[in-house]
Amino acid sequence: MNVNGKHYRTIWLNDDGSVRIINQAALPHCFELLDLHTVEDVRRAIKDMYVRGAGLIGACAAFGMYLAALEARPASFVQDLVAAACLLKSTRPTASNLAWAVDRMLLSLGVNDKDGVRDIERLRARARAIAQQIADEDADACKRIGEHGLSLIKAIATRKNGVPVNILTHCNAGWLAFVDYGSALAPVYAAFDSGVAVHVWVGETRPRNQGANLTAWELGQHGVSHDLIVDNAGGYLMQNKMVDLVITGADRVTRRGDAANKIGTYLKAIAAKENKVPFYVALPSSTLDFAMDDGIAEIPIEERGGDEVCYITGKTAGGAIETVRICPDATSARNWGFDVTPARYITGLISERGICAAEATALAALYPERTKY
Amino acid sequence: MNVNGKHYRTIWLNDDGSVRIINQAALPHCFELLDLHTVEDVRRAIKDMYVRGAGLIGACAAFGMYLAALEARPASFVQDLVAAACLLKSTRPTASNLAWAVDRMLLSLGVNDKDGVRDIERLRARARAIAQQIADEDADACKRIGEHGLSLIKAIATRKNGVPVNILTHCNAGWLAFVDYGSALAPVYAAFDSGVAVHVWVGETRPRNQGANLTAWELGQHGVSHDLIVDNAGGYLMQNKMVDLVITGADRVTRRGDAANKIGTYLKAIAAKENKVPFYVALPSSTLDFAMDDGIAEIPIEERGGDEVCYITGKTAGGAIETVRICPDATSARNWGFDVTPARYITGLISERGICAAEATALAALYPERTKY
Repeated sequence: MNVNGKHYRTIWLNDDGSVRIINQAALPHCFELLDLHTVEDVRRAIKDMYVRGAGLIGACAAFGMYLAALEARPASFVQDLVAAACLLKSTRPTASNLAWAVDRMLLSLGVNDKDGVRDIERLRARARAIAQQIADEDADACKRIGEHGLSLIKAIATRKNGVPVNILTHCNAGWLAFVDYGSALAPVYAAFDSGVAVHVWVGETRPRNQGANLTAWELGQHGVSHDLIVDNAGGYLMQNKMVDLVITGADRVTRRGDAANKIGTYLKAIAAKENKVPFYVALPSSTLDFAMDDGIAEIPIEERGGDEVCYITGKTAGGAIETVRICPDATSARNWGFDVTPARYITGLISERGICAAEATALAALYPERTKY
Repeated sequence: MNVNGKHYRTIWLNDDGSVRIINQAALPHCFELLDLHTVEDVRRAIKDMYVRGAGLIGACAAFGMYLAALEARPASFVQDLVAAACLLKSTRPTASNLAWAVDRMLLSLGVNDKDGVRDIERLRARARAIAQQIADEDADACKRIGEHGLSLIKAIATRKNGVPVNILTHCNAGWLAFVDYGSALAPVYAAFDSGVAVHVWVGETRPRNQGANLTAWELGQHGVSHDLIVDNAGGYLMQNKMVDLVITGADRVTRRGDAANKIGTYLKAIAAKENKVPFYVALPSSTLDFAMDDGIAEIPIEERGGDEVCYITGKTAGGAIETVRICPDATSARNWGFDVTPARYITGLISERGICAAEATALAALYPERTKY
């Protein structure tokens, strides 16, 4: 999507083989590109959330495996690749895309082959091609999610007769969370680009404020009408008929349709159900985890440091970037990054193959190859 | 309650007739007392939230009416008092305590009497006495709320066999929100003081962070175990059986038990119901509004400026108090201060006369004099 009128992806390969990213930790006050040269650079970029979002950390980890192939010593090529895979997979536990991308890289490089490693340069070229393919597929899947989701928005727009369709989203599942287009916001961009009047309620998404920092920024760059709200306001808006549709992303969706997503998503989902507001989860199929069933019992939920709750960074009146403590010095905080929305609260899933119910049969029908062993 | 080991109320009369308050806008990083000398001082203190909380703004407005009686000119005593009443009632629309206290002051001064004003000094003395009585009654009601609520906590503690009872609260309904003791936190303090093991989950309460700024501070000053969480985390905690009881305050409760409280309360209430966690609302009877029935349709919800969402104030590493913008410069925000939790989500109401169901018959049985005309 566009930044200051110029098209960007969130991640790409430089000619010299390094990986360039948009440093999302610096947004919205500073638009900054960073180059990652080593597996360690990639690990830190994911861990410290210079890149974040289910699709993007998958693509970034795939490029990380390409850098690992460059770094790996001929004498221990397979071992080095597996060590890099373990390192990258340990960075963030909740989103399934990350492990999915790393495993796909390993399998594509045939490191399980008994034959061993014959031609390292050929494998490195292959790693580069597969990583690029993972990134391209992510962008393509998101584009198609946009096309499918557009039908939902258009149906509401027709009913509302030109009055803007109010869409509530949580966290950032826009193009910044993927390689391009986004998941939850792909339908919004598709609607905007085809002239359907939309307005987005952007929940700020404490504690890391991805809504305020990223979603508000990318919607603003694209010219989509939106207002920032605190996460607490979602229920009030739905009670007062100010939300037509909720769309969020997901970090992992189980076989039966339970969806892990940014903490607070569950509260919006139950409010949507109580107020009869349709609640959709948008995701590329790399986010599907057919090995899991009961999301609450099985999906690992990352607990991050309490300082993310106690401190906040922003811009002073003088233009400096400053971090402030927003609670007493002695206060401790707990900080879980995600919650799980059980399938029964989800009106439907929007993936690159279309819209389906959040339940096992419908998901299996859409992705038969993922459920046959 | 205690600050650095010394007992304080949140508001009191100085010997010179001025009103002293704790400046809550400066907490938690600075404990500061302010003197209010005029009705205009009181108006600004309420409007700019140097004082806030249902009970405290009622008591503060009552003292404001005393200052109005001092300021009123003999030739237009009644008119001046009524003008001050209108001014004070216009500051905040949602909490019923404010209008309740102002009206009680007006009625007590007999300004509706046809006889007119005979002895201004007697009326001023009476204004002072009634304002002090309103403050004393608020503290006394909160103390009794604590005693009634303690029974709920003790019952859970017995079941848990010494494992701390986990109580989730939202916003600040502690002693800082009243004259003393608090509403939602009064049972917590009563439990702590009688040796029952409790732990409080403190929701930070965006956008003004009364949880992070005030609740965490006052619990810390009193020594009660607690952890700060983002508002988004409440659902996760309940899903994972980490909350035994939710207690919030209220700004207005209707005849049938619908409760307006800080924005976000409704989301916690529906999550509590979904997860079978008891959800109680604690309130002195000055918060009851028997003239209203349907809370969502009838309770006026204050919309405040978007800057409360876009900017946040805290302490820098160097110890300075700094305000930072936490979203893009171009982003607009909307900011409603309260939402309404329908009675069906509320397990019970804890008032100074005891615990009752959130419904019209039970409330009328507890407060018969308020429903007979």
